Amino acid sequence: MQKNETVIIGAGLVGSLLSVYLCKRGYKVKIYERRPDMRKADLVAGRSINLALSDRGIKALEEVGLMDEIRKICIPMHGRFMHNADGSTAYQPYGKEGQYINSVSRAQLNCKLMDLAEEHGAQIIFNQKCESIDWNKNEILLQDTGNQSLSTVHFNLLFGSDGAYAATRLTHQLQHNRFQYNQYYIDFGYKELNIPPGKNGSFLLEKNALHIWPRGNYMMIALPNMNGSFTCTLFFPFEGNPSFEMLDTKEKVTEFFKQTFTDAVPLMPTLEEDFFDNPTSSLVTVKCYPWIRDDKFALIGDAAHAMVPFFGQGMNCGFEDCSVLNSLIDTHNGNWKNILAQYQELRKPDGDAICDLALNNFVEMRDKVANPKFLLQKKIEANFSNKYPGKWIPLYSQVTFSPQIRYSEALVNGKKQEDIMQQVMALPNIDNCWQDEAIEKMIFEKMNA
Amino acid sequence: MQKNETVIIGAGLVGSLLSVYLCKRGYKVKIYERRPDMRKADLVAGRSINLALSDRGIKALEEVGLMDEIRKICIPMHGRFMHNADGSTAYQPYGKEGQYINSVSRAQLNCKLMDLAEEHGAQIIFNQKCESIDWNKNEILLQDTGNQSLSTVHFNLLFGSDGAYAATRLTHQLQHNRFQYNQYYIDFGYKELNIPPGKNGSFLLEKNALHIWPRGNYMMIALPNMNGSFTCTLFFPFEGNPSFEMLDTKEKVTEFFKQTFTDAVPLMPTLEEDFFDNPTSSLVTVKCYPWIRDDKFALIGDAAHAMVPFFGQGMNCGFEDCSVLNSLIDTHNGNWKNILAQYQELRKPDGDAICDLALNNFVEMRDKVANPKFLLQKKIEANFSNKYPGKWIPLYSQVTFSPQIRYSEALVNGKKQEDIMQQVMALPNIDNCWQDEAIEKMIFEKMNA
Repeated sequence: MQKNETVIIGAGLVGSLLSVYLCKRGYKVKIYERRPDMRKADLVAGRSINLALSDRGIKALEEVGLMDEIRKICIPMHGRFMHNADGSTAYQPYGKEGQYINSVSRAQLNCKLMDLAEEHGAQIIFNQKCESIDWNKNEILLQDTGNQSLSTVHFNLLFGSDGAYAATRLTHQLQHNRFQYNQYYIDFGYKELNIPPGKNGSFLLEKNALHIWPRGNYMMIALPNMNGSFTCTLFFPFEGNPSFEMLDTKEKVTEFFKQTFTDAVPLMPTLEEDFFDNPTSSLVTVKCYPWIRDDKFALIGDAAHAMVPFFGQGMNCGFEDCSVLNSLIDTHNGNWKNILAQYQELRKPDGDAICDLALNNFVEMRDKVANPKFLLQKKIEANFSNKYPGKWIPLYSQVTFSPQIRYSEALVNGKKQEDIMQQVMALPNIDNCWQDEAIEKMIFEKMNA
Repeated sequence: MQKNETVIIGAGLVGSLLSVYLCKRGYKVKIYERRPDMRKADLVAGRSINLALSDRGIKALEEVGLMDEIRKICIPMHGRFMHNADGSTAYQPYGKEGQYINSVSRAQLNCKLMDLAEEHGAQIIFNQKCESIDWNKNEILLQDTGNQSLSTVHFNLLFGSDGAYAATRLTHQLQHNRFQYNQYYIDFGYKELNIPPGKNGSFLLEKNALHIWPRGNYMMIALPNMNGSFTCTLFFPFEGNPSFEMLDTKEKVTEFFKQTFTDAVPLMPTLEEDFFDNPTSSLVTVKCYPWIRDDKFALIGDAAHAMVPFFGQGMNCGFEDCSVLNSLIDTHNGNWKNILAQYQELRKPDGDAICDLALNNFVEMRDKVANPKFLLQKKIEANFSNKYPGKWIPLYSQVTFSPQIRYSEALVNGKKQEDIMQQVMALPNIDNCWQDEAIEKMIFEKMNA
């Protein structure tokens, strides 16, 4: 393998991190990015969804020594802070004492990772759009988005990390026999809104939590930023009542928010402007197969497995892709045919699993967390898990805090646990007897059944 | 609605039949077909899979008075004739006395339907490839496949009946927000082979049956033709052992067939030529949504719901689409906005269901029908069904002989029945006690559970 013609399409989070991994191994990496250099431009706001960096992503960043840098722009969130429709609030820790996820701005993180990629020797070429790939000649046709000029780049090894709507995936797909492809849009879109900082950069909501306004069929969330502000995201139906379609005037928006997100509205002075200035974005799940081509190409990150954001795992999964791929370079002694084959074999079921888990979690976030019965269920699980830590890890913790458990395993485990908990919750008077020893015994029995 | 600008893309089975329905209502229909007129060209053999016309398709043909014509080219098949690996044979009727499906050549049927379409006033323009559609101007861009010249055609009402790889669907999809799309290829391909007629056009296998050589992971089938020949289709893995990939010489093919399809080989004098002259084709399932656009466009037939051929329902489902659509023209008094909306609402779940049923049936055909236990199960079902006809219709009969039952209902019913039968078959000594009254009672109880 010539190490001097390694190309990555897309300088997003995953592409940038992947380049660091490869540079550290002596590969000479060029990244071609469709957009201009975001570090030089004004940050484009409006469709970010703040990210929740958690253990899988952290592990991958630590492996290449980047986590110390990244930690500086992270805000720990220890649990969900629920703002109920009746004005009450509730708090649910994400895991045990000391377990937390990290709010981080996508733009800040991406800028940082591009800096680090360049520091490690990667070359990022901006404003270059992948038009097509010649899989026989191993050539990429690129178009300069400025002067429209075309150029051709040769590669020995190519990675497509160009996101949910990847151009690399499309050209791979169109030139592939029997390509498996599934794109699935949910009927909900999202819109970014904003809660500015208070005086002197103070936080107007509890800082170290992920805030949720669960409203049954829809929800708003808010994640803290370094400057004291919160980035809010409204996940809302495109059509129906209520829906984006219906909220078509500033008056209707304000009226609806006042009635629905009563405690948040006073904190959102630019609500009306934000609502109409920011785009309404859609939410897609993409599954495909194969992810690879011979010894020369692999999809990675969202390009391989785009998911909805409700488990906070899109980026973490993409970073884990990099980590797994990296470990396989050792396993197979740099034989890329074998590396890529096993990368796909390992990661395809995990990518599918987290896509499914993410879809399922939307119902949990927007609806179930407002339900006392559901919160009790989580409390029983946490209780059992604390007492018998090796026996029961709640699904959320398996996915978020347990990189040693594969997503595909977590999906299977989670189904079994949910089955058991449904039976526990169906017991008469469970609200009062949930700490009884008999309950514990029942859980043990069903686990071993 | 102006009735004079009704356009159908694709003069296949469904497009041709649809034109008859519309012509009978006074619509002036033009059909644009990518291929040359197959009635004037030599029939292209090699990838036909003979069709099995059954009650849903027949009902649709009868509604427009075409069935008498079509019946002339049909050969009734009353059941499955299994040729087992050990040389034994078995026969399983498809339904009750007098219920049968019909073997018909795709090419012959298509030619006939095009004749009938023209007789009813439809105009078919050949060698016209749909390049794109302008949904604002209601214009189709067509390319003449001969001289490559482009032309534009205006429409008020447009149907895409251009098959599994529909060009209309692609241009619809690319210009649609949040289009749901799923294409799924099975790991098996198919190849057409041939058993010629015997002396004086005699049939060398039982004429009125669908022949199956079930071999666990793969199978060959044979359907009778009017001239005494049988069209055989081998459904076989692309890769692995055995597979198309492995059978790469004439010697290997003959050797494999002699060992595997022992009783068929002597009837297949052109086996080696057929195997290498005929293409290996793939088998795709396509699900998508939406099928329609406002009051002006609908996908129909394979273009809306491509399925694998293992339930023999692809054409029948497409014909039923036409019949349902036609009935809705009355329901909604020619208001196409409402007609198309309800067409989609009714047919999308049915299209999904038959796609799933067709996939499931592959396992049944290639594997289970060789299993005496499975044949016993079917016998028990048939027995119960004969005694209590209103209570239990076997899944195959629901799909094939019961147009009054929707595919989506059949899918649900079939799952429940399979559940019950699994419990019945698990009874000890079922082989001997299956006619006991206790079994009947058990089935009744479980049905009402």
